[in-house]
Amino acid sequence: MAIRIAVDAMGGDNAPEAVVAGAIRAISQAEHALEIVLVGPEDTLNEVVAAQEDAADLPLMIQHAPEVIGMGEAPTAAVKSKRRSSIHIGLTAHKRGDVGAFVSAGNTGAIMAASLFLLGRIEGVLRPSVPNIYPTIKGECVALDAGTNVDCKPEHLVQFARMGSIYSRRIFGNTKPTVGLLNIGEEPGKGNEQVKAAFNLLDDTDGIHFVGNVEGREVMHHAVDVVVCDGFVGNVMLKFGEGLVTAYPIMVKQELAKMDASPEAQKAIKEVITAVTKRCHYEEYGGTPLLGVGGNVLIGHGSSSPRAFERLILAAAAVAAEDLAETITDVFVA
Amino acid sequence: MAIRIAVDAMGGDNAPEAVVAGAIRAISQAEHALEIVLVGPEDTLNEVVAAQEDAADLPLMIQHAPEVIGMGEAPTAAVKSKRRSSIHIGLTAHKRGDVGAFVSAGNTGAIMAASLFLLGRIEGVLRPSVPNIYPTIKGECVALDAGTNVDCKPEHLVQFARMGSIYSRRIFGNTKPTVGLLNIGEEPGKGNEQVKAAFNLLDDTDGIHFVGNVEGREVMHHAVDVVVCDGFVGNVMLKFGEGLVTAYPIMVKQELAKMDASPEAQKAIKEVITAVTKRCHYEEYGGTPLLGVGGNVLIGHGSSSPRAFERLILAAAAVAAEDLAETITDVFVA
Repeated sequence: MAIRIAVDAMGGDNAPEAVVAGAIRAISQAEHALEIVLVGPEDTLNEVVAAQEDAADLPLMIQHAPEVIGMGEAPTAAVKSKRRSSIHIGLTAHKRGDVGAFVSAGNTGAIMAASLFLLGRIEGVLRPSVPNIYPTIKGECVALDAGTNVDCKPEHLVQFARMGSIYSRRIFGNTKPTVGLLNIGEEPGKGNEQVKAAFNLLDDTDGIHFVGNVEGREVMHHAVDVVVCDGFVGNVMLKFGEGLVTAYPIMVKQELAKMDASPEAQKAIKEVITAVTKRCHYEEYGGTPLLGVGGNVLIGHGSSSPRAFERLILAAAAVAAEDLAETITDVFVA
Repeated sequence: MAIRIAVDAMGGDNAPEAVVAGAIRAISQAEHALEIVLVGPEDTLNEVVAAQEDAADLPLMIQHAPEVIGMGEAPTAAVKSKRRSSIHIGLTAHKRGDVGAFVSAGNTGAIMAASLFLLGRIEGVLRPSVPNIYPTIKGECVALDAGTNVDCKPEHLVQFARMGSIYSRRIFGNTKPTVGLLNIGEEPGKGNEQVKAAFNLLDDTDGIHFVGNVEGREVMHHAVDVVVCDGFVGNVMLKFGEGLVTAYPIMVKQELAKMDASPEAQKAIKEVITAVTKRCHYEEYGGTPLLGVGGNVLIGHGSSSPRAFERLILAAAAVAAEDLAETITDVFVA
């Protein structure tokens, strides 16, 4: 059976063109049959789809949603007032079971507010969480929270560990995902009050493979499959990494200017640095699921390109195929 | 007049050989006349110095200290029981005014405890702080706290901003250092409870150039001269950066394996990556001052090499030349 995904065609800085282009790429790249429902103003989307070659033969549907929630709008107010927005209509289609997942690169706050409003929290989940995926030297490391929950209690971190483990197992195939608590030292007893309390709780939690504290240094070396932290620390780390990855090619250029490299060597350097930069770019993951809500919702980056939408939609297809929200429900409600 | 520095000859994993070698290198590299007092067991040090060529002609003195505080010892207990340790004797020499600064790559907790015990806190300083220096694409960025103070109140962050500004101005020559508050968004009102309160306090503080929130992404691009954060976040960021810098060459190798580069190009790639790695390595800074104690104390990395000791001692000479502790006293007591 085909997997069907609803895509917010109006979400992101480059919508709807980049969304439609990404959707077409995703269909051609998908391992299994993939059907895509583009959600947005019918007339606009018909035009954009018609402008794409060969789109007529693809499993690409349009679901009319006349309203759009802008990137800068106050989330709660927008969610309350615009009931016919692409975010509402897409989430409602998922709630009805018409599609296996909903993805959007639109206003993150609005996606989260609307998801909570329409799909609710999974019973037992205190705080839904958005993870980040680090492209380590040995595969993917899931770190959460990545910025959704800036003030966390120890019990929130424990739930992040459980949800992150399910995500790592189901989507990245780690049969026994190891969990580390992000800390400033490896020994138990290290850290601030929050992580000291979280360490003890994690240590007492069944059903996860907690291996202890992990330092920031170890994240990119894949010391563990799942890293838990509060959203403030997680967001600083994520963005510091983004900044270092974009600073690195500039430092390479600065150091190269002091050296005497041939044009051919310079070309090779540029090529390999571009490859590493690309590997570390969010585009390659497209986006991550909002874990803990009662459905499969994936959030993409606001400035997503066609490539990023392609990856986001394929990630959503994987999440829908595993019905990640249902698996989390099984674990939390049990 | 020569600047005289006391160096803990027994501090660090490679002591005393690496310390003595680094001291000799520092003397030859120093801009101004530099005298070094090596602190440690006389007999051991005489032997190590004698083994170095030409050391007899250098301004290198030995101050006897029969006890050594090990890297793994509990700081408070060691500081209480070992009053004739190299850390005690060196700090006491600084307190007496015999030397302009004391440096050690030994047990960090013991250096801090002994500094507080022997030199005290500067009046008005709530929490001494160790910064980290980021080698950005446009010069040095001072970020503090780097791990000393894991649970901070907003008023601590304000003091870090003031001390970091003095450090940036005196040592890195930024006449009007800009200060940013590390946060998860640029807009005022972003962040957790701690940084929201700190934002308002920083905004009301005279004598610093507070420019608002700064995201992790901006640190390596040198958005500001001074970044303030609590020591938990600062330590995670610092170590994540260290990990990414060491993961990067591995990713380069992995990507290179997929490419078809000539031996000459591969050599050039290796050379430029080594240069960037070196630039980002702590060795290049050697260590940083413990800001807020009543003296010029610099702490080095435990695994310091001769090169790292050279840089650490030169950094100490710069701090002593400016009498950084006295400048902080002027500002805080005024």
